[in-house]
Amino acid sequence: MEFRLIERIRELTAQPRDDVRLGIGDDAAVLAVPSGQELAVAIDTLVDGVHFPRGTAPVDIGWKALAVNLSDLAAMGASPAWALLALTLPDADPVFVEGFAEGFARLAQPHRLALVGGDTTRGPLSISVAVHGFVPPGQALTRAGARVGDLVLVTGTLGDAAAGLHALQRPMREDDSRASLRDFLIARLNRPTPRLAAGTALRGQATACIDISDGLLADLGHICSASGVGAEIDAALLPRSSALLDLYDEASALHFALSGGDDYELCFTVPPQRLAEVQANLSRLGCGVTKIGRIVDGDSVRVRGTDNAWLATDHRGWEHFA
Amino acid sequence: MEFRLIERIRELTAQPRDDVRLGIGDDAAVLAVPSGQELAVAIDTLVDGVHFPRGTAPVDIGWKALAVNLSDLAAMGASPAWALLALTLPDADPVFVEGFAEGFARLAQPHRLALVGGDTTRGPLSISVAVHGFVPPGQALTRAGARVGDLVLVTGTLGDAAAGLHALQRPMREDDSRASLRDFLIARLNRPTPRLAAGTALRGQATACIDISDGLLADLGHICSASGVGAEIDAALLPRSSALLDLYDEASALHFALSGGDDYELCFTVPPQRLAEVQANLSRLGCGVTKIGRIVDGDSVRVRGTDNAWLATDHRGWEHFA
Repeated sequence: MEFRLIERIRELTAQPRDDVRLGIGDDAAVLAVPSGQELAVAIDTLVDGVHFPRGTAPVDIGWKALAVNLSDLAAMGASPAWALLALTLPDADPVFVEGFAEGFARLAQPHRLALVGGDTTRGPLSISVAVHGFVPPGQALTRAGARVGDLVLVTGTLGDAAAGLHALQRPMREDDSRASLRDFLIARLNRPTPRLAAGTALRGQATACIDISDGLLADLGHICSASGVGAEIDAALLPRSSALLDLYDEASALHFALSGGDDYELCFTVPPQRLAEVQANLSRLGCGVTKIGRIVDGDSVRVRGTDNAWLATDHRGWEHFA
Repeated sequence: MEFRLIERIRELTAQPRDDVRLGIGDDAAVLAVPSGQELAVAIDTLVDGVHFPRGTAPVDIGWKALAVNLSDLAAMGASPAWALLALTLPDADPVFVEGFAEGFARLAQPHRLALVGGDTTRGPLSISVAVHGFVPPGQALTRAGARVGDLVLVTGTLGDAAAGLHALQRPMREDDSRASLRDFLIARLNRPTPRLAAGTALRGQATACIDISDGLLADLGHICSASGVGAEIDAALLPRSSALLDLYDEASALHFALSGGDDYELCFTVPPQRLAEVQANLSRLGCGVTKIGRIVDGDSVRVRGTDNAWLATDHRGWEHFA
């Protein structure tokens, strides 16, 4: 089982990298970090029925297992290089393996990410991926650098993945004219786009950065804790997709945008004088970016409603799926 | 749950490493590979009831999860540096977490291994560990360099872990005077010793190397496949512990030594003229080392019995536990 899956992904992603001195097939891979680069490494696990709904297509699972990890590299401003894959499967189902490999490879390929090692074991379905990326010394984006007066920005739109999960769990009428909106939201849940180009563009620009996996309130809360600051967000400024706004009422859409997880957008802070440049840089990459608030003295995240009153929220927010 | 476990292991292993620029607590760790070193990386997963018997003590699970990965670094001749841990647990049981952290830390500490990242998730018990070690360029030990005429050696003794599993699965009489022998074998199963010092001592000496996780026949078979050679082993030369020989008859002891997995000893090849030096070097490290056969033309592993006839074996051997 081991070699079929790992070899299959290698076939689908075949792209020589000079820095891979010894790839899959020995006790360990041997890798050479380019001189003048530091290594960013992260590991994340997806468990069946916990991090993705049971019945999720194998191709989506393969994509998402890599995407959530690449998103961690994006949040550090690192460029992806190598991955290790540990896949636990109840049985060696060739349909699952082929679909998983295809989804994983489809995301790996354009980023020139090499799968350099793996382990396949029998057991309840779960996937751990460890990713490795490069970042110039001292330029990694951390959670700890936000300063009072910085602006808070996010890429893309918020709340789509949580709405997608909500939609997935409700039966749909066959004649539903809004099926394509629903599909868009579900695709945002199943096929998140790690914001890698945005992450590297933010090197030297953002003072703090995180990816939104647990929801905006929770993840911006992590920036605040690590930086020793507070934040104020304007609900009216939150970027939300037309699919979200068409399918859900304002209260639900706001709830998903504030507390929904799994969007894998970046939330970051910049000094006001860099706003225009950062917006121009990210827009040039085709990545939407929106100012949603600012960093203040304090230790919590507050949200100003459209009526200018503070909303009642907490850091944990909605108990999200992932 | 996440931070308690990861933080607890960090507390127990606390040892500053200059090469860890940013440790646990952000989206990724940031690491600096020392100049003039390449990186060896491996990942392995342990699943409850598959790679260790259900009911194994948490402290043993923590130790073994790291040990099987460090063993991969040993087989490459790499020195351990960093690890990532992905732990999936059915519930946040503090007794399990404390035991696991203690076992993991007890093995990490003497090797100055730093835990630099992790992920804890809820689900059926399984553990993936990714390890990173250093090796000078071009000096990694692979499976591919064995040449006809080379001698085949192993560290330590073989078959103990498989016998330990066998013993564990049989009830013991309370008055069994051989309980300490049984305990020795079970400890070899639960607390394998990765042969790290031996691995680095073999740099520039061994022509091929692998760790014995699947059993001698299977793993020496991997060296033969990768090197395009065959091997002949003498059953009479196989190093076996007195515990194994006292508790099991010759046929069982031979079976465990040839086909039992989970010993995590090294199997390697050296040219005959290096034998004396390698034996002296490893003995000086307190690591037993035994010549068990030689590399020949061919593509399979054959075992000569004590009567000089070839034993009937196959590469898969006994279906081992791991």
